[in-house]
Parts: sequence; C-alpha cells; structure tokens
Amino acid sequence: MLKLAVLVSGGGTNLQAIIDKIADKTITNAKIEVVISNKKDAYALERAKKHGIADCYLSPKDFATRPEFDQALLECLQKYQIDLVVLAGYLVIVPKNVVEAYENRIINIHPSLIPSFCGDGFYGLKVHEAVLARGNKVTGATVHFVDDGTDTGPIITQKAVYVQEGDTPEILQKRVMEEAEWNILPQAIDWIANDQIEVIDHIVHKK
Amino acid sequence: MLKLAVLVSGGGTNLQAIIDKIADKTITNAKIEVVISNKKDAYALERAKKHGIADCYLSPKDFATRPEFDQALLECLQKYQIDLVVLAGYLVIVPKNVVEAYENRIINIHPSLIPSFCGDGFYGLKVHEAVLARGNKVTGATVHFVDDGTDTGPIITQKAVYVQEGDTPEILQKRVMEEAEWNILPQAIDWIANDQIEVIDHIVHKK
Repeated sequence: MLKLAVLVSGGGTNLQAIIDKIADKTITNAKIEVVISNKKDAYALERAKKHGIADCYLSPKDFATRPEFDQALLECLQKYQIDLVVLAGYLVIVPKNVVEAYENRIINIHPSLIPSFCGDGFYGLKVHEAVLARGNKVTGATVHFVDDGTDTGPIITQKAVYVQEGDTPEILQKRVMEEAEWNILPQAIDWIANDQIEVIDHIVHKK
Repeated sequence: MLKLAVLVSGGGTNLQAIIDKIADKTITNAKIEVVISNKKDAYALERAKKHGIADCYLSPKDFATRPEFDQALLECLQKYQIDLVVLAGYLVIVPKNVVEAYENRIINIHPSLIPSFCGDGFYGLKVHEAVLARGNKVTGATVHFVDDGTDTGPIITQKAVYVQEGDTPEILQKRVMEEAEWNILPQAIDWIANDQIEVIDHIVHKK
C-alpha cells in the first residue's frame, strides 16, 4: 500500500479527485496518510478532516529560518512514512533536502503542456493568462516527477485540452482541471502504486 | 476564389492533402495556382504536374545574392496574383520583402504545439527527436500566420497527438502528419478562403 502525502495551498480540488478515485478504486494500492498545507485556512485541510485523513499546517512563515522549515517538512513526511509526495497545487518550492530524500518519489501537476508555459512565474491562473495571451488553441496539463529545477523533471503523463473562442483564464482553468488534471493526477498515482512505470535516463516508460 | 501558392522543399504530403481536400470539397473557394520548391528534385513538383498545377523551381543557390532571390520569389507570387502563401514543409526562411508584402497572408505548418519545440533549429525530424528526448507524452501540430520571427506569428489552429511507448522520431513524425498536419492545414485554408477568421491583437478569432 503506497503511502501518500498530498501537499496543497488552496481549495484542494485535485486532492478531492484523489480521495474520490481511491474510494471508487480507480486508484488502487494507495492511501493518503496526511494532507499538508502552507495555508492555515486552505479548504483542502477541511476536506482531509471530513475524510478522516490527518492534516498538517506547516508554513515557512512560522519558522525563523528556511532550513528550519525544510527540516520540519522532511520530518513530517518521515513521521508518516510517506512513499510518494503529491504536489496538488502547492505553491511553495519544495526544499532541496526533501527533493533529495524523495528522488523520483515526488510528483507535481502543472496546468499546461510542459515545456510550454512552465518554469518560474508560471503558476495558477497566470498559466492560463499566458496561454490566452499567446493565442494558443491547445493547452492541457502535465504530471511530472520533481527534480531540482522548476517543471524540469521526467514527464509521467499529459493530456491536451482545447481552448475555445471566448475563453477567459478562469473558464480555461476550470476546463483544464475538469478535463485533464482530475484525471491524469489520479492516473499517475495509480501507475506508481501498482509499479507500472519506471524512469530511464530522465524518460518515463510504461513497464 | 482564393489563389494559393504552396511552397515546399520535399515530398509534399501536405501539398497532397491540400490537393485532395480541394478535390473532395473539404476546402472550398480556394485553388492552388502554383507550387514553388527550392529543391529541383522535390517530389512535390511531380505532384503539381500530375494535377495540372503550375510548378516553379526557385532556389537561393541559383542567384548571385540573396536579395535577388527574394525579389524573384516575390515576383513569382505576384505573377500568379497569389492571395495566400502556404508553407508546407518549406525549409527556406521566407524573405522579409515577402513577409511584408503578404502580412497575415502567409501560413505555415509546424510539427509541434507551439510554443513547445519551435524556433530556430526546430524543423522536420529534429522536432520529433526533441519531443522524445524531453519525454513528452503529448505533441501535435500548429498552423500559424508567418511574421518576421520564427514560429512567432498568430496561431490559427492546433491539434494534439499522443506519444506512444516505443515511438521513434520517424514513427512520431508520421503520426503527427496523419493525425494532425493533413487535417489542420487544409482546415486553416478553408477558414481563410471562406473569411471565417480574423486576427485581432495577434490573436486569431473565429468570426
């Protein structure tokens, strides 16, 4: 049974998708041990409580130095014996010590088709604003392993979403979530939980 | 009736797709007036001849200076009273004088989802090599208007294509052609021929 920590900063709709897909057995052999948020009032923490999942508020703001936060985060993951860290709208850069301790065991969902519209400065609604400003007709979402770059890790899965005439960033964000994110993030977790993928030379292959 | 020039450097499978889709009326109100190639032995020129379309070989190599070639190309387009220039695997950079004379009347097909895997150095098989080297799971093709940058013009249409386990650059190139290029390039021509799109502030909108 793969033990998951889901790290969030906001409403937690991707968290909810994971909870639902564990419940309906779309994801098998995985269990959420803890939800960690850097925002005290993140609705994601409420979702965790409702489903009997441990919740943990941990913010860099509450620590005197960043290394102290980094250590606290790592200790939290170790306490729950986490096998896979799932970044589901987590707006904190994952500390180097955690990336090193969990090589190819941290995954992130990014709301574009990497390498388009990713890297520093591209998060949340800003991604969709940039897609529309470029006049793109296709966008999507990507699940990837996290390495020490921003959105540079091995790509696990991607799904395309078509832009429609009249889209606003908000409308597009919602469509990318519904058509892509809520499907491919659970899909990636299920593959990992069932040992169906491997990383060879930075490329993710199906076994 | 929109008068087209199709510019090619190779086999001309995208040219063939345009010929076929004019024949079966997927494209209406458009006619290919001339096929221009910078390669004397491009099979695309044979395709033109077979279909009774004027063919023209024009290469920078045969001119003492580049401006002389640029002028000859412009004069060829003017001679045929061309309304829309279609770059269908044309590996010559379109001269500035032609870009200026045909603003928003030159379109190009690029075998990736712009802004991924585009710009200088990304053409032909190199695009698909780069997609596989990054481990992308989604790629596709883009039709865009040509401006004075490389692959920076307004995007008319895009189509996603999924990478499959075991793909080689050659296999992926073929799938992108079959599933995307041969559909979206004719589609874009039909939209332009029937006055269905407009460019506002660098963004292509349906009318």
